[in-house]
Amino acid sequence: MYPVVMKMIDDLIERMRRGDKRATARLITFVENDEEKAREIIKKIYGYTGKAYIVGITGPPGAGKSTLLDKLIKEVRKEEKIVGVIAIDPTSPFTGGALLGDRIRMQKHSTDPGVFIRSMATRGSLGGLAKATNDAIKVLDAYGCDVIFVETVGVGQIEVDIVKTADTVVLTTIPGLGDDIQTIKAGLMEIADIFVVNKGDKEEADRTVFELKLMLDLEKEKWKERGWRPPIIKTVALTNRGIPELWKAIKRHKTFLEESGRIKDKRRFRAEEEVKTIISDIITGKVGKHMKREEIYSLIGKIAERELDPYSAAELIMEKTLGVKV
Amino acid sequence: MYPVVMKMIDDLIERMRRGDKRATARLITFVENDEEKAREIIKKIYGYTGKAYIVGITGPPGAGKSTLLDKLIKEVRKEEKIVGVIAIDPTSPFTGGALLGDRIRMQKHSTDPGVFIRSMATRGSLGGLAKATNDAIKVLDAYGCDVIFVETVGVGQIEVDIVKTADTVVLTTIPGLGDDIQTIKAGLMEIADIFVVNKGDKEEADRTVFELKLMLDLEKEKWKERGWRPPIIKTVALTNRGIPELWKAIKRHKTFLEESGRIKDKRRFRAEEEVKTIISDIITGKVGKHMKREEIYSLIGKIAERELDPYSAAELIMEKTLGVKV
Repeated sequence: MYPVVMKMIDDLIERMRRGDKRATARLITFVENDEEKAREIIKKIYGYTGKAYIVGITGPPGAGKSTLLDKLIKEVRKEEKIVGVIAIDPTSPFTGGALLGDRIRMQKHSTDPGVFIRSMATRGSLGGLAKATNDAIKVLDAYGCDVIFVETVGVGQIEVDIVKTADTVVLTTIPGLGDDIQTIKAGLMEIADIFVVNKGDKEEADRTVFELKLMLDLEKEKWKERGWRPPIIKTVALTNRGIPELWKAIKRHKTFLEESGRIKDKRRFRAEEEVKTIISDIITGKVGKHMKREEIYSLIGKIAERELDPYSAAELIMEKTLGVKV
Repeated sequence: MYPVVMKMIDDLIERMRRGDKRATARLITFVENDEEKAREIIKKIYGYTGKAYIVGITGPPGAGKSTLLDKLIKEVRKEEKIVGVIAIDPTSPFTGGALLGDRIRMQKHSTDPGVFIRSMATRGSLGGLAKATNDAIKVLDAYGCDVIFVETVGVGQIEVDIVKTADTVVLTTIPGLGDDIQTIKAGLMEIADIFVVNKGDKEEADRTVFELKLMLDLEKEKWKERGWRPPIIKTVALTNRGIPELWKAIKRHKTFLEESGRIKDKRRFRAEEEVKTIISDIITGKVGKHMKREEIYSLIGKIAERELDPYSAAELIMEKTLGVKV
């Protein structure tokens, strides 16, 4: 890396540490787009991190997560805490518009110096998203955020993986999504620390709460052993109903994690996931650097033509790019 | 690998090539559970593969995919073709039961020597699922299957990735799932070659077909450029309505891929994805082999305690386990 780039990064970090939002935004752009700069930045700011509390908010599209988050930010701001928000957008020609609308509503907090909001798009390559999100969290952490909300649409595995690394996971649902949705959410059920039934003024809200309760009852032993049974909170985000209760529940879960020592496990888990992601990214980068595109292309062609099997190809690539004998 | 194991594998492969279903099943179990045996088996059978046509069938839970597949198998069998089925089960305490029921219904084909059905469960470790599925496809291909159906529930990214590598992707939906489901499926929309509206005798079926048509109309240019616009087929799997049409559409898509030369791109894409997966698995294996659990544990602890940043840890691990300088 050129010394001038190094200097620029040092500059940006210094400005970020003094509370400069624009410098912070630029650092996030760097960790998002440039592998080498990301590494440099994270190494330099890592010592400043570890103070922020990470809350993952997920749920199906249409569950009103953005409105909920909008009100939640207000609630947290009452305590003078610095809030960061990372909103993960699943990229799709069919949903782009709708999601954008929600984001704009939330964006009004941007004028509040104590709130930092950032959207991240999957942009095709899902692989890099988890890493970019983790790095962005660290920048916001070093910036001084006390709480960082990571909002994802609980659809893809990657999104679930991202939210899974949070300290507290809030799963948002709405009444009347029917059985199919229940099944879809099954994978998410297991990672939720708090359930929210939003649009709680709807007729079927109580039935949804009841059904969730039944589901949780099925695993009574698990909650007992764990020491935490996920509470179910009914909210009407539009009128702020239930929002103070939700924030209280998040804080209660934080206290539970701290007192039980589980916060350490969570952080270890997050560290482990991060290292794995970084290693796999480095490998991908190395392959790209040490083998010409045509070379890879011809190898792939041979596999497709059955002249070479994929295992032998993988061994060949690893020897060539990493010097590793399998 | 011990010579006796080698010999057993050779034996099983020979029996599989003579049409022995039990030997085939054992080979699949091997590629599913044993990294080293998988490599050996795939290397040995790879020359026999490349003949099967792979059809991915996906869609939300409750869309009737298993019943559809059940009827589709019958339809294909009329042409005396050998059929393989790989059904991916998302593991979840909440859905386990329901899915199992569907599978049992399909299982009746097992007595037909021309049908081979295999369930694969995610079993927590999602990483290995894509590789295991790819390897199982190859075993069934070498066994002599003309058509292999891969059925997944369109929920996680991994499941989507698996179905994406198929030659033809069939996306199944049912009427009246509402807007939320439409959004959830967005990521799947883009990979579908054929749309099926199952339970087509329901009142709202025509509206669903109409909505899908509208969505497809939005991308007219794309279809023109591609030379294939996904057809929408209304089925009532229970009474076999639309099933012959669906099979015809699959064959039409196959012809399109072959005549346009796109089949080659598909196979290259599949080969590339496979090599990537294998490389990442080898790395994970190497890390596990060359570093003691306690060593990794202590490293992760240092990251969690902010004594070490994750990038430096990744570099350290790569140097130690692969001898690779970053």
